[in-house]
Amino acid sequence: MKSRTAIYPGTFDPITNGHLDIIKRAARLFDSVIIAVSNNIQKKPLFDIDERTELVRIAVQDIDNVAIDSFDDLLVNYVSAKKADAVIRGLRVISDFEYEFQMALMNRKLLPDIETVYLMPSEEHIYISSSIVKEVGRYGGNISCFLPPEIETALRNKLRMVKKIW
Amino acid sequence: MKSRTAIYPGTFDPITNGHLDIIKRAARLFDSVIIAVSNNIQKKPLFDIDERTELVRIAVQDIDNVAIDSFDDLLVNYVSAKKADAVIRGLRVISDFEYEFQMALMNRKLLPDIETVYLMPSEEHIYISSSIVKEVGRYGGNISCFLPPEIETALRNKLRMVKKIW
Amino acid sequence: MKSRTAIYPGTFDPITNGHLDIIKRAARLFDSVIIAVSNNIQKKPLFDIDERTELVRIAVQDIDNVAIDSFDDLLVNYVSAKKADAVIRGLRVISDFEYEFQMALMNRKLLPDIETVYLMPSEEHIYISSSIVKEVGRYGGNISCFLPPEIETALRNKLRMVKKIW
Amino acid sequence: MKSRTAIYPGTFDPITNGHLDIIKRAARLFDSVIIAVSNNIQKKPLFDIDERTELVRIAVQDIDNVAIDSFDDLLVNYVSAKKADAVIRGLRVISDFEYEFQMALMNRKLLPDIETVYLMPSEEHIYISSSIVKEVGRYGGNISCFLPPEIETALRNKLRMVKKIW
Amino acid sequence: MKSRTAIYPGTFDPITNGHLDIIKRAARLFDSVIIAVSNNIQKKPLFDIDERTELVRIAVQDIDNVAIDSFDDLLVNYVSAKKADAVIRGLRVISDFEYEFQMALMNRKLLPDIETVYLMPSEEHIYISSSIVKEVGRYGGNISCFLPPEIETALRNKLRMVKKIW
Amino acid sequence: MKSRTAIYPGTFDPITNGHLDIIKRAARLFDSVIIAVSNNIQKKPLFDIDERTELVRIAVQDIDNVAIDSFDDLLVNYVSAKKADAVIRGLRVISDFEYEFQMALMNRKLLPDIETVYLMPSEEHIYISSSIVKEVGRYGGNISCFLPPEIETALRNKLRMVKKIW
Repeated sequence: MKSRTAIYPGTFDPITNGHLDIIKRAARLFDSVIIAVSNNIQKKPLFDIDERTELVRIAVQDIDNVAIDSFDDLLVNYVSAKKADAVIRGLRVISDFEYEFQMALMNRKLLPDIETVYLMPSEEHIYISSSIVKEVGRYGGNISCFLPPEIETALRNKLRMVKKIW
Repeated sequence: MKSRTAIYPGTFDPITNGHLDIIKRAARLFDSVIIAVSNNIQKKPLFDIDERTELVRIAVQDIDNVAIDSFDDLLVNYVSAKKADAVIRGLRVISDFEYEFQMALMNRKLLPDIETVYLMPSEEHIYISSSIVKEVGRYGGNISCFLPPEIETALRNKLRMVKKIW
Repeated sequence: MKSRTAIYPGTFDPITNGHLDIIKRAARLFDSVIIAVSNNIQKKPLFDIDERTELVRIAVQDIDNVAIDSFDDLLVNYVSAKKADAVIRGLRVISDFEYEFQMALMNRKLLPDIETVYLMPSEEHIYISSSIVKEVGRYGGNISCFLPPEIETALRNKLRMVKKIW
Repeated sequence: MKSRTAIYPGTFDPITNGHLDIIKRAARLFDSVIIAVSNNIQKKPLFDIDERTELVRIAVQDIDNVAIDSFDDLLVNYVSAKKADAVIRGLRVISDFEYEFQMALMNRKLLPDIETVYLMPSEEHIYISSSIVKEVGRYGGNISCFLPPEIETALRNKLRMVKKIW
Repeated sequence: MKSRTAIYPGTFDPITNGHLDIIKRAARLFDSVIIAVSNNIQKKPLFDIDERTELVRIAVQDIDNVAIDSFDDLLVNYVSAKKADAVIRGLRVISDFEYEFQMALMNRKLLPDIETVYLMPSEEHIYISSSIVKEVGRYGGNISCFLPPEIETALRNKLRMVKKIW
Repeated sequence: MKSRTAIYPGTFDPITNGHLDIIKRAARLFDSVIIAVSNNIQKKPLFDIDERTELVRIAVQDIDNVAIDSFDDLLVNYVSAKKADAVIRGLRVISDFEYEFQMALMNRKLLPDIETVYLMPSEEHIYISSSIVKEVGRYGGNISCFLPPEIETALRNKLRMVKKIW
């Protein structure tokens, strides 16, 4: 019997209940799961890489076989360096699927051994995305059912600070 | 460390290189994979359940951690009886995705613990389906790159016999 | 102020909680809603037209501004005869959308005044369809969360009778 | 008989014949329709909020039961404040549908009573969008069949002014 | 300068204004176009192969560089025998696209030199299909804007005869 | 017999093997093909218009009936000025299709005679796009199978220069 590791990459700006749903599913299917926070600055995240990593750490502290890391490289290089068996992706909508399809084929060209595993969140999370949650939060809408309580507090504080600076 | 089992259900009428591609990927990610041939007679398969099961057996004989079974029940009941950790599905096209999405949500309602794992075949298999291969075979077209050799022979024989009966 | 009538056409074989969800939404938006059960025999329904109409009647008896009817004509002719203001359709998935799009454009060509209004069921109903519920019921699966109790009983009885005949 | 109000929200930068088509359809289905011009500055509109509101006013002056407003809040808050019965959305393409689907589910989570009603423009408007019309106008192309005459003049003047500033 | 031939295959049961639109477009792009009526009996057409071929002949009699043929083979074999440069396909909706995509990749595997060329009908034809026109005709609906006059007459006669037999 | 010209427009930032695949297919179907490099500055290309044109020239030097040009106008105006018979577009994914569909209908409104011809690249190119190749190159990934050798060298040099400036 072999021990298997999966990597769940993302921007996590910030981690939502939708991400958590996928992480819990992955943690049941693999011996260990590495949540890999991408440092891609082109996406201009609201939280910096240390904040995003810390918020992931808080959100997943009760799940045993999960580790948190950040990376600043092509995903295939990172996966290869970690000797991971699979990359986890959450699928919510058709356009996710199409983009994922292209990425999976591209990644295999770059690293033939890479395997991408798609999981679906439960129906109550299919419409949650970090960007939509930030938009609702920006207008003071109720975001408590989309985020763990600590993440909600962090997001509210961050949005208040950003507003002051403007 | 836990041993994990996945079930790959289908009609396999007959098994194609596209199915084999998914089976090999699943066999690297799980400790054991059960290929579950569905006995759903509403689909009016060309091969009967024993033939389809036998063709699967021939096609996967070199893969160690794979077992073959047939089932005649709701998939969720079968998965529950087998205490499997996941159901494997291959995704090739958008319409697959949409159907799978509905099925995954329905199955979870019936059996909350069920986890569906989607894998993508390599790009050279994304257009292969059993029905399209049977149609090409019916007209005497070249199907050798879509099926293992033994399956190709079996399909050619079956199509010849069916023609005589007509 | 004008009184407005909408028609909600379908096969309703049988009516599900997904249909009911749409009917309740329509009944809040229009002064009266006619549920029009299609007698299209090409679809080979499990329940005959009288049974399907009766099951709809049972399911909607608590909604005030709803009437039940059956029709055996082109939808546009029926809508025109009823002088209805709109046709209601439920949208659940992309392929629904595409088919509906073609139908809406076709119907407008035949009857320029016709207006089609699309509503979305709540997320817990997006994967329910009559055919999937019948399939689960056929295998004795738990269908109680997809149908009103009386409809569930009727479906179980019908499936038992059909089985005997076979 | 109840009086019903629908809200048709959008950026309207500027209002096109496609928007007008939807507004006329909505005005036949509801007792009153509020066209709600969004003041979301993140979209960087070509026309400012007052200009966009004024152009809508000019374009709809012949439709009786239509009011014009602007809003700078979450849509659900605005709808709630207005006690509206429905939100109107135009559907033209698949990707609209998918985005709308997510939005509708999200909005219902925030405001369970909200009902979104989707209408389809006539076939001659399915390819019109404000952004595509602005692009054609920028190159001096013929945009007279996509906009009411007054809006076309306003767009041509605005594009000329913007060019001077550059 | 080379003379180029394209093949436009289909069931044409019967030919519609949508097919004609594509044929006229193809006839402008290629030196000769062969309309190849498929004799695939699995589709159970309303008109037999001779009737369908004759109706095509009537509909295209004014287009110079068009020939009519029927075939009962794999499309790739037929295209190869005719030494054609391209296969013409009309695209109307997403699901067409996806099916066409699979077919194009499959056909290239069988015959690498084959080229498939996709054309789009004008917007007024995007919702016309032979099956939808037959359904409308069956109920006595107005089909005169979907078919050339002679084809409409032939369809009305055929539907009347079929009705008598039932 | 008429000589026919097709225009293949794009940003080509830079030209990839996917573009080349489409160009070769077009060059077999038309007597001459004009590759039209768009000077649209809103896309903020990595290479300027002269560099992009020159890279196209290098990549297609072995194809006889191909010319290279640049344009800074509405596509329909350019096509009209060139008296071209068709516009060539490559289709890779569903979202391409939808965007293309809208563009084709819009262009026909502006220039009724314009014909758009869609071709599909071979399966090994369906996931290649200029932007994905640039992203992989930026991280030093292996891009040699996505670009002709000279274009790869040019892209590596450009990415090195851009990095220095930052």
